[in-house]
Amino acid sequence: MIMLHRIKYCLLILMMSSVSLLAEKSVVDRSAELKRPHHREVVRIPDLPGYLTLKCDFHIHTMFSDGVVWPAVRVREAWEEGLDAIAITDHIENQPSKAFVGGDHNSSYETALPEAREKNLILIRAGEISRKMPPGHLNALFLSDVNKLDLAEPEDALEAALAQGAFVFWNHPGWEAQQPDDTVMFPVHERWIREKKIHGMEVFNEKEWYPVVLQWVLDHDLAVIGNSDIHDVTEHFYDVRFGHRPMTLVFAGERSEAAIREALFAGRCAAWWGDEVAGKEEYLRELFNRAVEFGKPYFVDEDGDAWLEVRNSSDLTFVIEPLEELSDPGKVTIYPDGIQLLRFEAEKLPQTIPCRVTNFHTGMNRDLVVRITLDRVSPGR
Amino acid sequence: MIMLHRIKYCLLILMMSSVSLLAEKSVVDRSAELKRPHHREVVRIPDLPGYLTLKCDFHIHTMFSDGVVWPAVRVREAWEEGLDAIAITDHIENQPSKAFVGGDHNSSYETALPEAREKNLILIRAGEISRKMPPGHLNALFLSDVNKLDLAEPEDALEAALAQGAFVFWNHPGWEAQQPDDTVMFPVHERWIREKKIHGMEVFNEKEWYPVVLQWVLDHDLAVIGNSDIHDVTEHFYDVRFGHRPMTLVFAGERSEAAIREALFAGRCAAWWGDEVAGKEEYLRELFNRAVEFGKPYFVDEDGDAWLEVRNSSDLTFVIEPLEELSDPGKVTIYPDGIQLLRFEAEKLPQTIPCRVTNFHTGMNRDLVVRITLDRVSPGR
Amino acid sequence: MIMLHRIKYCLLILMMSSVSLLAEKSVVDRSAELKRPHHREVVRIPDLPGYLTLKCDFHIHTMFSDGVVWPAVRVREAWEEGLDAIAITDHIENQPSKAFVGGDHNSSYETALPEAREKNLILIRAGEISRKMPPGHLNALFLSDVNKLDLAEPEDALEAALAQGAFVFWNHPGWEAQQPDDTVMFPVHERWIREKKIHGMEVFNEKEWYPVVLQWVLDHDLAVIGNSDIHDVTEHFYDVRFGHRPMTLVFAGERSEAAIREALFAGRCAAWWGDEVAGKEEYLRELFNRAVEFGKPYFVDEDGDAWLEVRNSSDLTFVIEPLEELSDPGKVTIYPDGIQLLRFEAEKLPQTIPCRVTNFHTGMNRDLVVRITLDRVSPGR
Amino acid sequence: MIMLHRIKYCLLILMMSSVSLLAEKSVVDRSAELKRPHHREVVRIPDLPGYLTLKCDFHIHTMFSDGVVWPAVRVREAWEEGLDAIAITDHIENQPSKAFVGGDHNSSYETALPEAREKNLILIRAGEISRKMPPGHLNALFLSDVNKLDLAEPEDALEAALAQGAFVFWNHPGWEAQQPDDTVMFPVHERWIREKKIHGMEVFNEKEWYPVVLQWVLDHDLAVIGNSDIHDVTEHFYDVRFGHRPMTLVFAGERSEAAIREALFAGRCAAWWGDEVAGKEEYLRELFNRAVEFGKPYFVDEDGDAWLEVRNSSDLTFVIEPLEELSDPGKVTIYPDGIQLLRFEAEKLPQTIPCRVTNFHTGMNRDLVVRITLDRVSPGR
Repeated sequence: MIMLHRIKYCLLILMMSSVSLLAEKSVVDRSAELKRPHHREVVRIPDLPGYLTLKCDFHIHTMFSDGVVWPAVRVREAWEEGLDAIAITDHIENQPSKAFVGGDHNSSYETALPEAREKNLILIRAGEISRKMPPGHLNALFLSDVNKLDLAEPEDALEAALAQGAFVFWNHPGWEAQQPDDTVMFPVHERWIREKKIHGMEVFNEKEWYPVVLQWVLDHDLAVIGNSDIHDVTEHFYDVRFGHRPMTLVFAGERSEAAIREALFAGRCAAWWGDEVAGKEEYLRELFNRAVEFGKPYFVDEDGDAWLEVRNSSDLTFVIEPLEELSDPGKVTIYPDGIQLLRFEAEKLPQTIPCRVTNFHTGMNRDLVVRITLDRVSPGR
Repeated sequence: MIMLHRIKYCLLILMMSSVSLLAEKSVVDRSAELKRPHHREVVRIPDLPGYLTLKCDFHIHTMFSDGVVWPAVRVREAWEEGLDAIAITDHIENQPSKAFVGGDHNSSYETALPEAREKNLILIRAGEISRKMPPGHLNALFLSDVNKLDLAEPEDALEAALAQGAFVFWNHPGWEAQQPDDTVMFPVHERWIREKKIHGMEVFNEKEWYPVVLQWVLDHDLAVIGNSDIHDVTEHFYDVRFGHRPMTLVFAGERSEAAIREALFAGRCAAWWGDEVAGKEEYLRELFNRAVEFGKPYFVDEDGDAWLEVRNSSDLTFVIEPLEELSDPGKVTIYPDGIQLLRFEAEKLPQTIPCRVTNFHTGMNRDLVVRITLDRVSPGR
Repeated sequence: MIMLHRIKYCLLILMMSSVSLLAEKSVVDRSAELKRPHHREVVRIPDLPGYLTLKCDFHIHTMFSDGVVWPAVRVREAWEEGLDAIAITDHIENQPSKAFVGGDHNSSYETALPEAREKNLILIRAGEISRKMPPGHLNALFLSDVNKLDLAEPEDALEAALAQGAFVFWNHPGWEAQQPDDTVMFPVHERWIREKKIHGMEVFNEKEWYPVVLQWVLDHDLAVIGNSDIHDVTEHFYDVRFGHRPMTLVFAGERSEAAIREALFAGRCAAWWGDEVAGKEEYLRELFNRAVEFGKPYFVDEDGDAWLEVRNSSDLTFVIEPLEELSDPGKVTIYPDGIQLLRFEAEKLPQTIPCRVTNFHTGMNRDLVVRITLDRVSPGR
Repeated sequence: MIMLHRIKYCLLILMMSSVSLLAEKSVVDRSAELKRPHHREVVRIPDLPGYLTLKCDFHIHTMFSDGVVWPAVRVREAWEEGLDAIAITDHIENQPSKAFVGGDHNSSYETALPEAREKNLILIRAGEISRKMPPGHLNALFLSDVNKLDLAEPEDALEAALAQGAFVFWNHPGWEAQQPDDTVMFPVHERWIREKKIHGMEVFNEKEWYPVVLQWVLDHDLAVIGNSDIHDVTEHFYDVRFGHRPMTLVFAGERSEAAIREALFAGRCAAWWGDEVAGKEEYLRELFNRAVEFGKPYFVDEDGDAWLEVRNSSDLTFVIEPLEELSDPGKVTIYPDGIQLLRFEAEKLPQTIPCRVTNFHTGMNRDLVVRITLDRVSPGR
């Protein structure tokens, strides 16, 4: 009982001409109708002052560990979804396909690289140190030789990564399989943070989010990370047609691997997951300010309410809840590429109103608060 | 400028409760919103008298040849798309991943089998003999040991398949890479057909259809085959959400591998591709008769036209063009699970009208013709 | 960043031929690509033993009261959405367009009737008595002259309807505008129920559901009603492409207005709203039994679990939660036209397991409980 | 067999909590899940130097003539679809609802105006002079009193419009009902053009396009107009979720009715219909230049081909066909908000390549030709 027949209708039209074609050639090619077209999607996230906002996924598996696809597929998926950079992070210790799949820990990177070059995608050599808790799982990015991390002791593997200049983050710190009771930090994590051996943590992983981890990251001035941890085909797992995979937004000086590395060590990043964004207040505020624009009042109605438009020119979603009373519904969702109408008492304008952006998280129990400034009503309205 | 925000809206609602959840546990799990749900789709194609209509794809690749996914993915894709049976037909001669992927020619079957058993999907052991033209590419199904087909001479490989009782069909006979000028049959094909070494041919392969091949198949009483020949993830290549992959409809005595084999050797099958179906007239007529139902006239309008409903209770589409003049538009598309209205001169009823089903192909330049019988108008209408 | 370009792609293909067409005629008609195709959707809800399940919406407005469309639009919407019957129930007392729109209380019925006849849709003459609470709003169906209900006293209007043999139900009894504090029954409702002047109540109205009203209806053996109460275009308000409007499922002896009336007075109906169904236990149980089928175990895995399929061949959704422990996830959603897999301990089979269908409501705090019977595992599995 | 269950899945999740809610209140409100959210869509068409590009539909009907909706619906539809301005152009001579609908020729404007003010949509007072051919149908915009056009003689009605300063265009000049044989200009049209009484013509109307009319318009330096001519609900007729209605793009000095009028008289506009745009070469070239950006070559492959990205940051679609040979596929579709990859022989760069934009029409048999300039490959690539 679904009514999406438009597509089929197009097919039918084309089909009608097939009989006449037969006389001329003996192959009817319907690539256009039967093959899905592919292109790189433009994902609109505002750049920050002095920085490009790069869309990155730093946690991805292939059949070289326990993923189900060939590495080049990861590049093509990321390209279509509009990402700028990915790191394939196959498990160093977990390779269930080993009976059939050879190569070494660098193979997934190396087989994906030609595709990445063609597609203009930044591919970061990386690996996942996958141990029982503690310390759990750690991703090491910007490696020069992943094989050197294949060591018995977790800390030796970590040191091997750091020796290569790696950026290291703690994966899914609240993953139930490793944290059955509560999400806690172990002494080893505390020590490694103190020793600057861990540089970030995932606050979003796959379908989970860990508010307490966001607080740890902010308290220790680390990088806020969000990733897909995809093992399946991304489109099988996420609805990438109408949504997006979890990712890290990196505010980088340029579109290069070096700039991503610099930004991550500087903690200049945020995480995006479903409609939610988590990160340092200053970055989230800037994303809001650059994506959302409040227009001038254009009309005053009979009740004395002034009407104005709020416009979101990004692919982010913003849910805004005024902390003071307005005339209009308390909570407003401003959809991607969308405009909503707001009403305020005309007499009170101009006015500055503090609002909570309830889907922008700046701490464990803290959301972004913005102050929106409303113009006075022009005479004549 | 796309307005599909309903999904996101749902997300937002759920999100609202997150803050209160934080106090209770430190992980927020959004599996329901962020993960795509999976289930096996019911594809409605009418059964034929005495036979079940099984949805089959006999031409599929994995990373054991030049496909990009692990074999179990093929089972999961087919399960979601509602198929009953698949054959993984990795190239015996073409394995670009050989540097990394080991195993032998039986490995793709064997690694997919556990998943197939769990998913209740019939998995057929098979392989693709992939040679330059002639003879081109041949799929051999129902093998017991694919390795035995790894022989230098094409005919030796074919004989090795036949010795195992294989059903053999010629793949994409009109593929431009192997038939640059025209789609022709070579002497070796003619001999093999005569010797009953080839039992079917693909009339639909991926995005191509070969009307002349349909004629050859019908003339030699072989099996009409249509397959996806998928190398990529199916959903990357085809729009399986709103459409379907190319497939063979097998009219089998029961839902078993043996029954599929029996039906194929008996030529009891048809091919489905986009909105088009190709095959023997008797099978296509039966599909039409069992899917399409013409109701009684329920109304006579001021112009003396009687109105009736035509109902399609299948997932097939039918485009019907009366060969005699009706009151209503000459060509009518009856969508899946849909009803259309037709008008006829009331005075002429009851009447039998010959119609062409323009998307059901029963030969190279021949479509199915059906005779629809319209009831008289009941008194009082 | 949405990737639904398949449609556009089809357009483009067609477009390519436009230049050559120009020489032949001076109009390019793209009806097929630019116009949405229309047909009547088949909505699959199982029939009940001895009865057809008719899809009905008994609460609809047009511009003859405070709706925004011409009555014939209501017929076309209902036809496309696969409904069998509708009642246009314009407010007798509320007609904000009166300055421009003339006619009388029968006009919406009369102007819609020709379209209904052509579309084979049952159109019921009706009206909405719209008063402040108590008694609130009442719909009267099966009228012969709506004008006679235009009386000052609510009870006089009700009597005028009953004098015409009307079926009368209480609309949105929990509507906040009329029940600001809680959903309560007033003495007048109690009396009218006792006097058999009210025959049903809406448990679902538009986007609201009133569990307590379901209990009242069941306790007094009235009819369970659910309606859209649509004022806007239905597709603007509901997502009718991927969902459906709220409606009443009437279990009628035949597809006729008389049979619907008989069924309603007999209380043979249920209400469908989003994924939820409300009604008498016996009807909901029958819907479940006829839509959902549990297959035989087809496989026993290494852990001793037997696998079987559960199939839903309707457009309803079922969420099943076993009341005893199974091997598999506790709660399973069986989607429309979908199959899910279940696992049980093979040793315990055959077995009968009580399950709660959590989206089928048979009382205020009560859901349908079904006992599913699982076959034993055949030897050889 | 459609797999869009994500939406339903969200519903189910929410539903789960319903039982616990019952204890607390007796109404369950599912507005969020069951109601479609509404917002104003941002339609991205580049502004031109010195001008805003306003999205306008100047041909719309309501139930005050032969449309099926109340005028305010037209405002809400246009608002959601992201239009800036509309003209409701009810037929002056054709009012089939007259038996029920009163008012006068200004009523549709006047009843829509309050909604337009709230929604910040420019509403233009207008009417359609609807006569048999010649002269056929003419729309008159920017009227002060539509009633004054209700005169027996077509030319008198036209003069009455011109006396109010109207902008007048010829509607659907190739409409088969009025031009059964061919699309021809009648002497009266020639005279009125000469006398500057007709200022534009529709080259796109509803599902039709008239290439010869584009030529007439360009030859006489009139305004190129495209409109929906919608009578039905727009979403019933067009696929506005994944596409758009036909419209006129007006290049106006500011967002005001006066600026639209000035622009139309100056011929500063183009027409958009499906994926096609028609208009003066200079405007179409500017749209292309401002929407499409060719990046620098970022990679040279083994075959000596340089790769670069072409990015479309608008909601327009561009189909580009190089007039000289490239390495890559001859014809490339650059989707809205999308990036495609192109390959060129690195040795030949820098280079300027003439391309045809096959869906941008600048005359009857003429498409836009652009010269794209490709950078040289930087050393090190």
